[in-house]
Amino acid sequence: MQELKKWLVEKNQERLYEFLVRYQPYDIAQMLLKLGEYEQADLIGSLSDELAAEILEYVDPDVQYHILDHVSKGKTALILNEMSSDKVVDLLIAIHPHQAQTLLKFLPEEHRKKIEALMRYPEKTAGSLATVDYIAVRNNWTVEHTLQHIRKVGQDAEMVYYIYVLDSSGILVGIVSLKDTILATENTCIEVIMKKDMITVPAQMDQQEVANQLSNYDLMALPVVTEEQRMIGIITVDDLIDVIHEEATEDIQKLGGSEPLNEPYFEASLWSIFKKRLPWLLILFIAEAYTGTVLKHFEDTLEAVVSLAFFVPLLVGTGGNTGTQVVATIIRAVGVGEVKFRNLFRVIKREATVGVCLGLVMGIAGLIRASILGVGFEVAQVVAITMLFIVIWSSIVASALPLIIRKLRLDPAVVSGPFITTFVDGTGLVIYFMVAKTILNL
Amino acid sequence: MQELKKWLVEKNQERLYEFLVRYQPYDIAQMLLKLGEYEQADLIGSLSDELAAEILEYVDPDVQYHILDHVSKGKTALILNEMSSDKVVDLLIAIHPHQAQTLLKFLPEEHRKKIEALMRYPEKTAGSLATVDYIAVRNNWTVEHTLQHIRKVGQDAEMVYYIYVLDSSGILVGIVSLKDTILATENTCIEVIMKKDMITVPAQMDQQEVANQLSNYDLMALPVVTEEQRMIGIITVDDLIDVIHEEATEDIQKLGGSEPLNEPYFEASLWSIFKKRLPWLLILFIAEAYTGTVLKHFEDTLEAVVSLAFFVPLLVGTGGNTGTQVVATIIRAVGVGEVKFRNLFRVIKREATVGVCLGLVMGIAGLIRASILGVGFEVAQVVAITMLFIVIWSSIVASALPLIIRKLRLDPAVVSGPFITTFVDGTGLVIYFMVAKTILNL
Repeated sequence: MQELKKWLVEKNQERLYEFLVRYQPYDIAQMLLKLGEYEQADLIGSLSDELAAEILEYVDPDVQYHILDHVSKGKTALILNEMSSDKVVDLLIAIHPHQAQTLLKFLPEEHRKKIEALMRYPEKTAGSLATVDYIAVRNNWTVEHTLQHIRKVGQDAEMVYYIYVLDSSGILVGIVSLKDTILATENTCIEVIMKKDMITVPAQMDQQEVANQLSNYDLMALPVVTEEQRMIGIITVDDLIDVIHEEATEDIQKLGGSEPLNEPYFEASLWSIFKKRLPWLLILFIAEAYTGTVLKHFEDTLEAVVSLAFFVPLLVGTGGNTGTQVVATIIRAVGVGEVKFRNLFRVIKREATVGVCLGLVMGIAGLIRASILGVGFEVAQVVAITMLFIVIWSSIVASALPLIIRKLRLDPAVVSGPFITTFVDGTGLVIYFMVAKTILNL
Repeated sequence: MQELKKWLVEKNQERLYEFLVRYQPYDIAQMLLKLGEYEQADLIGSLSDELAAEILEYVDPDVQYHILDHVSKGKTALILNEMSSDKVVDLLIAIHPHQAQTLLKFLPEEHRKKIEALMRYPEKTAGSLATVDYIAVRNNWTVEHTLQHIRKVGQDAEMVYYIYVLDSSGILVGIVSLKDTILATENTCIEVIMKKDMITVPAQMDQQEVANQLSNYDLMALPVVTEEQRMIGIITVDDLIDVIHEEATEDIQKLGGSEPLNEPYFEASLWSIFKKRLPWLLILFIAEAYTGTVLKHFEDTLEAVVSLAFFVPLLVGTGGNTGTQVVATIIRAVGVGEVKFRNLFRVIKREATVGVCLGLVMGIAGLIRASILGVGFEVAQVVAITMLFIVIWSSIVASALPLIIRKLRLDPAVVSGPFITTFVDGTGLVIYFMVAKTILNL
């Protein structure tokens, strides 16, 4: 780092290159982030357009904009032209529309039109992830012609390993891998070696679905097409890996009962963390508040047998724990597409069965615990029976809710651990006091 | 499916091929899983070795073994030879060592030695994920020679898009992409276009770390090397996508307070789900049980002011919810490498600050709720102050524990939502009654 700063300050291009050549673009991007804002612009400004573009692709859109805003206009135009189109789209969407218009003016007419077309797709859809920097050939070309074409345009393409075969109206008719192209003889026609049965994704498809397709079929890129199979662009595996990470992070944060942060932990401001957590805490508070109503309703029972109060946290706690275990399993199974709404009854049956077994064991544990506390056999019995019921009830609720919520087109992950815990707290108390009233004849 | 079964029963090879050619190997694998066991062996037995191997790579090792056990020995040998070496290793590790020995005998001497070498690496390390089906060339070869070599051996390679340059003793000295090879002139020496600064991973590296490397550097494969940079094999992006999925699933299931299932939801037996959940439920039960002790200890306070009991679930519930939010955020940040132990105090400071803000809001909410229930201003005050303390306390515990547990080389995800909830239940009650005793002068 010190070395890098030194060559920057001294404007010693030669030593700067010697230093940077030892690192990967990703590593240079990490160093870039640690520089001051003028140093950042100096560094990017002094690199080749290609390397500058590659490094910028590793940093967030707001940093990209900040740097481009500080280098010369000519340089900005050259760098934007080198960046892959999906990354340019990300940048333009993230910044102010006015700023985006300014940047768009730097692009040549044809490129600008493509970018503007991609910008129309809503966030998190296949269209918004697509890049137009792919290699397209015609079905009547020979292998030799194709290889010549790749040599000509390959340097700018994001992915040269799949070659997309289009007809005269831009309809995707086949895909051939560079591997098969190399393995074929030079005068073979592309039509002969291309695959006609291909996996394509519509532009509207949700990004998680796209990621599932790619990982199921073990592909390195997926073509995005319109309804008429017209080629829009491709999504490459590295962008989908980011999607997979992002979706898992969201699921985990939602499971924790909070709006997802959508940014790296240390980049999120305390205010934004506060804003994402508070609404859910308040909603859960209101839901939890009726436990007070329930307890007040059974005040007489509680006054008659104060020892019943000792087991309130243990019973609702175990119910909440069971529910959290179930909901985590189901949300992940839904997330990776293993479980769907049509499996609802199968899932409930499985979870209820496991719930009965767990409930029996936990009921015995409850009996033992109550006996140790010396509250008398009758109260111990109440605890044991309530434990059984609460565990079963919690298993059923936690298995059904994520699927029902999903069917209602809400995100299943809003059914979080805290949500289930809260729900079971109130309903569990009702179960507890009803069992108590019955057994203790109150 | 009906059509597939028909051609299988009629042993109509021609129609069977016509049918299958319309599908991707992954789709055929899905159909295969729905067939009876003899039909499965019939199908695999009647396909080309290459297609059979490709389809089998999409199913679990136990299914693979089951099918291979039912086809002829000659066919088994041919299919095993076509399968990529990392998949053969997975198969051999999953089955009984005795069965593995039998299968190994089907492989030619040289191939067997490579497989046996890969089998020595512990599960979930880079070595265990590596495949030896990569393309290796020497540094003094020309581009033309390299392309000829790829044409000869490329069909069997899992990944032809990176070419690994080894010296005479098997040390990795450079990597050249197929793209750069194609773009170069035929008589260029590989040494000139190869990259010498490359990302390699040691065989012992944890698979999650490997996945992070790959996604950081946007690569499609990573070379696995020994300490002396001797080439062991490569890990391809599709295998690492599986790792990323697997690790996220594990984190989510652990966050839910359960041992991870390590298999798709519907494939996990009810017994195995029961076994993975029960130990944690019991551990949490024991931890939760001391809430009874706490409550019993404060029995006099509780009898004096029964209304204090109304707020027990609300207070500990809100504390648990806050803790779960924090722990989910931290576990994910640790999982993707954003937060490390050295950030401990920074994390605690951030979370405590957010905790104070959330605690103030929730304290006011508590005051309002208690007033509505009509328990008197003094008890309402106790509820509000306790709420503030519990939210702060819970934030600190949930931010510190995952990092400390990780430092102690335990998996941070054992600090689950239920764990934090349970911990806060007991300690929160102590806070509650101490505040109550102070304010109510009991």
